[in-house]
Amino acid sequence: MKKNVLIIGAGGVAQVVAHKCAQNNVVLGEISIASRTLAKCEAIAASVEDKQAWQQPAKLHCYKLDALDVAATAELIRATKAQIVINVGSAFLNMSVMSACIETGAAYIDTAIHEDPAKICENPPWYGNYEWKRLQECADAKVTAILGAGFDPGVVNAYAALAANHYFDKIDSIDIIDINGGDHGRYFATNFDPEINFREFTGRVWTWQNSQWTQNKMFEVSRTDDLPVVGERTSYLTGHDEIHSLSKNLNVPNIRFWMGFGDHYINVFNVLNNLGLLSEQPVKTAEGLEVVPLKVVKAVLPDPNSLAAGYTGNTCIGDLVKGQKDGQEREVFIYNVACHEAAYKEVGTQGISYTAGVPAVAAALLVADGQWDVERMVNVEELDPRPFLNLLNKIGLPTSIRDEQGERPLTFE
Amino acid sequence: MKKNVLIIGAGGVAQVVAHKCAQNNVVLGEISIASRTLAKCEAIAASVEDKQAWQQPAKLHCYKLDALDVAATAELIRATKAQIVINVGSAFLNMSVMSACIETGAAYIDTAIHEDPAKICENPPWYGNYEWKRLQECADAKVTAILGAGFDPGVVNAYAALAANHYFDKIDSIDIIDINGGDHGRYFATNFDPEINFREFTGRVWTWQNSQWTQNKMFEVSRTDDLPVVGERTSYLTGHDEIHSLSKNLNVPNIRFWMGFGDHYINVFNVLNNLGLLSEQPVKTAEGLEVVPLKVVKAVLPDPNSLAAGYTGNTCIGDLVKGQKDGQEREVFIYNVACHEAAYKEVGTQGISYTAGVPAVAAALLVADGQWDVERMVNVEELDPRPFLNLLNKIGLPTSIRDEQGERPLTFE
Repeated sequence: MKKNVLIIGAGGVAQVVAHKCAQNNVVLGEISIASRTLAKCEAIAASVEDKQAWQQPAKLHCYKLDALDVAATAELIRATKAQIVINVGSAFLNMSVMSACIETGAAYIDTAIHEDPAKICENPPWYGNYEWKRLQECADAKVTAILGAGFDPGVVNAYAALAANHYFDKIDSIDIIDINGGDHGRYFATNFDPEINFREFTGRVWTWQNSQWTQNKMFEVSRTDDLPVVGERTSYLTGHDEIHSLSKNLNVPNIRFWMGFGDHYINVFNVLNNLGLLSEQPVKTAEGLEVVPLKVVKAVLPDPNSLAAGYTGNTCIGDLVKGQKDGQEREVFIYNVACHEAAYKEVGTQGISYTAGVPAVAAALLVADGQWDVERMVNVEELDPRPFLNLLNKIGLPTSIRDEQGERPLTFE
Repeated sequence: MKKNVLIIGAGGVAQVVAHKCAQNNVVLGEISIASRTLAKCEAIAASVEDKQAWQQPAKLHCYKLDALDVAATAELIRATKAQIVINVGSAFLNMSVMSACIETGAAYIDTAIHEDPAKICENPPWYGNYEWKRLQECADAKVTAILGAGFDPGVVNAYAALAANHYFDKIDSIDIIDINGGDHGRYFATNFDPEINFREFTGRVWTWQNSQWTQNKMFEVSRTDDLPVVGERTSYLTGHDEIHSLSKNLNVPNIRFWMGFGDHYINVFNVLNNLGLLSEQPVKTAEGLEVVPLKVVKAVLPDPNSLAAGYTGNTCIGDLVKGQKDGQEREVFIYNVACHEAAYKEVGTQGISYTAGVPAVAAALLVADGQWDVERMVNVEELDPRPFLNLLNKIGLPTSIRDEQGERPLTFE
């Protein structure tokens, strides 16, 4: 049993986490939020007040923090009496925040893999590069660290575990398909920080095929599926965090990730990439100014947070699993459909942030009530998926399944 | 009769002008070149030596000059005893170089209209904004000033005059079609300074139709023609200097300019333009650096001069003229085809620079021998086109015609 949550970060996902923590503060206790920019924390606090999100009357405590500073982070964890830290700050912070949790004994939850700002698209083994080097350290300190507890990674890992535990005797392939069928109405925009967003696509694509790592280029391999609610969509083979942990934790020879892109997005991306405008290496203008092109692209693109108000449509993210059960070939698609407009109405963000933030709070609730308080470092597929998916059914991200019997909601009570 | 030439500028067009002046230095006398960057002048001098371009032994005299400084420019004209100044520097220099010519009595020749660096795509009347305000001043000083003596403007104005003088009693329309059928082998590049290049297309398109100025958007109106050598090509209605002077000097109700673009060029242009990356207004990066996006785009694009060595294919630029002669409707296309590889072999530049630079030297030769030494300011169509086109036939840009009798070279002896 743990309580009192410290949220690290103050972007769109942090806003969702703050709202959902507030909606569940009877169990979670005091809720605090910390970021380099105090004003962003205060704006989130105002949004929580505005939506009257608190389950029981309380205030969101706001702090200015450089979370790369382990001592300062540990001090804030102690000062706020936080026993659960939800790290939804930049991907560069994971290691320092985890150090502060190990130092203080607080549980650690994040939603994406650690990145080194100097390296783009590192090669597998991704979790092996940073997080898993500290498995023993967490076990020794009895620190609960739940890695990748957003949607993907996170919920899709739970879907994979559910399929492996309940729907298959043997799995041949897991294809994680992530479609944003929404429309932000702008000429072009990324759904989160362009610097992080483009980093995913400028390197090589690594996937797990025939039980080994396989390389492709971005936009080289595509598939088209007719999916619930969002309809027929084309997605592209992409490298993604959870391929690595699932390949280690499940005995499945093919694990692939597919990200949906429209032709327009791909065209703009290709033009910028081919011209060298997505480069993180500085160039010098004729006037002698040194500039990183990607930072200029970021400056001219819409602020991702500005997209929320006008965003329409739905996301559909799920696991298409093929294998055998009771001697029969079968295929199931376990998925969630989330609505951008509903997310904005509830928590003031678009649906992409919503799907990433809500699962982290579900994980925190399961740590708080002890079900997931495992006192070691785990990826989501190592835990029982049923209480997690059951909670998500109740707090905004319901699970459905499509199999031989058609489409229907899944419950686990 | 005038002699000794001072070339202002040291880009690709200046290199062509230097080579062609050297090839004709018996008539033209001493040849000098001046630019802000002395090393660029010296590189051109080395190229002239390398190609053994001199008609009779001589040296290209190199000078460092800020041609916005009228007094310094006048002093250099006097010091070099230049009676002819060929201004092929930046489009921002025309007014200051012209002032220096008026002060010293030297003849002035340029290849493009004056631009104010702070203004993008000014509205018509273009020559009226700057050059023509000084018509009386040139006449009073008996200064010969030949405006727009490149290819377009320049040779295409001579084609228009030739059509009006010899091929038609009445002209209904002149469509100037400029096709670069060449291939530089890069993903994307502009053929001259991207800052100047994109300025042509980011504003409104002005053309002369039904005897009045008409507005369109860039890439809004296109035509497709089957043209000599380059074949079937699509071109787009574009604003261009010579539309203005031709509309004043010839009694023709429709004068349009069409620039050829491939789908790939248009796509890249549209992506950059729609994202705001062609803007001259500074943006601020997340780190607080103020940057002009267009200058960053320029920094990542290939240096236009670097394209010359691998450039293949041909340009085709000409005037499609429709009207009546002896009571009959007729249509003639007067044009030149220039080869990128031949230009590189002869003068070390690509064909776009070649077509702009050679006509300026032909104009200088006609000023030198007195035929075009008119002691006033003129646009090319006001002069007899025959000696000009005849010279161009001999020095690298031969004229052809396509009419009822098919395609054939035009001579004027």
